[in-house]
Amino acid sequence: MEFLSGVQQKETLEISQLLEKDYEGQTVKVNGAIHTIRDMGDVAFVVLRKREGLLQTVFEEEITNYQLKDLREAATIEVEGVVRKEERAPHGLEIRIKEIKVLSEPVEAMPLAISKWKLNTSLEAKLNKRAISLRNVRERAKFKIQEGVVRGFREFLYTQGFTEIHTPKIGAKGAEGGANIFKLEYFHKPAVLEQSPQLYKQMMVGVFDRVFETAPVFRAEKHNTKRHLNEYTSLDFEMGYIDGFEDIMGMETGFLQYTMELLKKDYAKEIKMLGMTLPNTDKIPFVRFDEAKKLVSEKYDRKIRNPFDLEPEEEALIGQYFKEEYDADFVFVTHYPSKKRPFYAMDDPADTTYTLSFDLLFHGLEITTGGQRIHDYTSLVEKIAARNMTEEGLEHYLDAFKHGMPPHGGLGIGLERLTMKLVGEDNVRETTLFPRDLNRLEP
Amino acid sequence: MEFLSGVQQKETLEISQLLEKDYEGQTVKVNGAIHTIRDMGDVAFVVLRKREGLLQTVFEEEITNYQLKDLREAATIEVEGVVRKEERAPHGLEIRIKEIKVLSEPVEAMPLAISKWKLNTSLEAKLNKRAISLRNVRERAKFKIQEGVVRGFREFLYTQGFTEIHTPKIGAKGAEGGANIFKLEYFHKPAVLEQSPQLYKQMMVGVFDRVFETAPVFRAEKHNTKRHLNEYTSLDFEMGYIDGFEDIMGMETGFLQYTMELLKKDYAKEIKMLGMTLPNTDKIPFVRFDEAKKLVSEKYDRKIRNPFDLEPEEEALIGQYFKEEYDADFVFVTHYPSKKRPFYAMDDPADTTYTLSFDLLFHGLEITTGGQRIHDYTSLVEKIAARNMTEEGLEHYLDAFKHGMPPHGGLGIGLERLTMKLVGEDNVRETTLFPRDLNRLEP
Repeated sequence: MEFLSGVQQKETLEISQLLEKDYEGQTVKVNGAIHTIRDMGDVAFVVLRKREGLLQTVFEEEITNYQLKDLREAATIEVEGVVRKEERAPHGLEIRIKEIKVLSEPVEAMPLAISKWKLNTSLEAKLNKRAISLRNVRERAKFKIQEGVVRGFREFLYTQGFTEIHTPKIGAKGAEGGANIFKLEYFHKPAVLEQSPQLYKQMMVGVFDRVFETAPVFRAEKHNTKRHLNEYTSLDFEMGYIDGFEDIMGMETGFLQYTMELLKKDYAKEIKMLGMTLPNTDKIPFVRFDEAKKLVSEKYDRKIRNPFDLEPEEEALIGQYFKEEYDADFVFVTHYPSKKRPFYAMDDPADTTYTLSFDLLFHGLEITTGGQRIHDYTSLVEKIAARNMTEEGLEHYLDAFKHGMPPHGGLGIGLERLTMKLVGEDNVRETTLFPRDLNRLEP
Repeated sequence: MEFLSGVQQKETLEISQLLEKDYEGQTVKVNGAIHTIRDMGDVAFVVLRKREGLLQTVFEEEITNYQLKDLREAATIEVEGVVRKEERAPHGLEIRIKEIKVLSEPVEAMPLAISKWKLNTSLEAKLNKRAISLRNVRERAKFKIQEGVVRGFREFLYTQGFTEIHTPKIGAKGAEGGANIFKLEYFHKPAVLEQSPQLYKQMMVGVFDRVFETAPVFRAEKHNTKRHLNEYTSLDFEMGYIDGFEDIMGMETGFLQYTMELLKKDYAKEIKMLGMTLPNTDKIPFVRFDEAKKLVSEKYDRKIRNPFDLEPEEEALIGQYFKEEYDADFVFVTHYPSKKRPFYAMDDPADTTYTLSFDLLFHGLEITTGGQRIHDYTSLVEKIAARNMTEEGLEHYLDAFKHGMPPHGGLGIGLERLTMKLVGEDNVRETTLFPRDLNRLEP
């Protein structure tokens, strides 16, 4: 009988292995996709794209067992060659090719010039050829940053005693209700795609006290703006035994601080490549909703049209105000009007027109909605009645409250929006691998 | 202006904090849900359920500022009291209550005796009252083990140069095709819920070489068995530049080894609570599909009815065979028949009736399907044609191959099934927080 005893060792070296020790003059094997070929006459630079970056290999007609004309960009190859120091090459080294083995060949010329530093093409064109455009090293770097954000979220919350959960995305009823729900038929029963793990994560607070989930959510919203997606990845947490919603904002501040450190440590290459400046997370101001509206109205001489709503332009100005006045990249806006928040939001006992809730703005864009929730069964049932909602479909959720729930609250962070602001993009599709919007269902 | 500068410090202590140093005789504050009250006459033991376990507090009529009769199971409370060593209590200590502050109260008696060591109730009853039944400490422990598995998957793959991705769950076409697809309307266009991230993760191999995703997948299968769910969490990876599908099996072996070590280290409490014996992952046998059928047929005197199919009973016997003959908990069954595998599976060049693919069986249950994929554009197009499939809806997928893809392969692991086998359950619903099956859409 044959057995597997772990990861198979490879003959080929990765970039980090080439940098681990001095390979000068030694013969090594590497593989990669041909990112670009620069023919200089006597020699040609065949730049390989590997997961850790670009690697320069050098083709010399006399030495290599191959015809340069047979090598095509986008082919994947394995190369055997000699390592040489070369300051002008990425990572300070190059590989002088002795042998080439072609692993796969393209059948058509590349539709996009992915080897350029910046892909000079429209967002539409990039999204239409997503599997190709992402091969540009700056395009893909955005998604390494996105990975870092998700890693930071999970790693930090583990240290804070949170448990990761997986809640269903097909349900009988949407968490927030309203019109923006995708409907489907589930074995002859009407069903919906969950807009948020809200009701489930609250139920799970009664089990684990602190829970989080990183998963897709679905919103059938008909706006087609730069900041909306119909499917996105939500970073959600919910925590029990809070003293107030400051605990939730404090936890988010801790997450952001942890994540910026993680990015600096493990994603320095991508930060440099994208020319990113990491935001300041040492201290994040918080301001009441009505106060924020007033501050912005006064400073920028802007009339308050609706005291219970925050327009996108107002959000942008709040961001501008706190950047100018406090050099703050983030600001928590608290005490949103009750009628703008879902039924489960806890009203402020001091003034029930407002809730103990918040949004986090990052350079004037909402990237988080959170707050304290109602934990008392009777209050919850009263709020549902006061809103003329039905308890139908909420029986299981309400059951958890019937049988005791601690004071709790939580938040949801839009991963693509946070990534967009971090990398300095202005359309959330730029930081979504395969975005879904009103017009786009493919690729 | 006010600022938040990080996680808010709490006055209340968690169990691990109480064990960090000697608090004997000191007054501390703790909080939790009243898991059970045992009235002994003079004193009562009020056992709190906290995220890290149970904590015994002691109610003494003379000393506590409260009436015992006013305390109810499932209330959440904050307690101030004196720490005393007590060998018979969990963690070897108890807290003699001085003050009680009630945070929330239940409105109805508990429907399930969750404080019992084992919840002696049917699976149906547990699932109907999921938010309650999960408060049983053994029930919830299964989901800590599940967390450990997902953590292990991600942490291990990060060390192996994989990038985490998030692919859309609403698409124009299912990855595997067939009848078991949930359909929905997406802004007046027909759409489906993805059965697997297969096509997306393959496209992403061309970008990052190695990718993984941990996300829900949706299968509209009409079987209602102990091992099927209509929505489950799939642990997927896909890796490029492989020499053969042994690389994929090796990577999975490495993941299992890493994860068992992680469970031993960070989830010892749950392993003990559930009486788990961790499986042996040092070396995992692999055997051809046809050979496995033959071995089992001979040893257990069982006729081979269909040489191209593996029945669940046969899988169970293969598990039994390898346990008996090699003391193996896992076995890779390789070279599945081509007609049983999707179009993207690579046929074995030595005999195209079979594929370079595998399933991993854990004690006779399939927990993984994987294999090498076709990477050559022409071969892929030919296979699609040979199956009388249409390229419609696959244009973007095929584009990636037109423009060069390395040899690659990957796998998908059913998280709930793997957890079920690890904790020794025999119904996958036992290890799913909120299962979705033919009859169950709630809670």
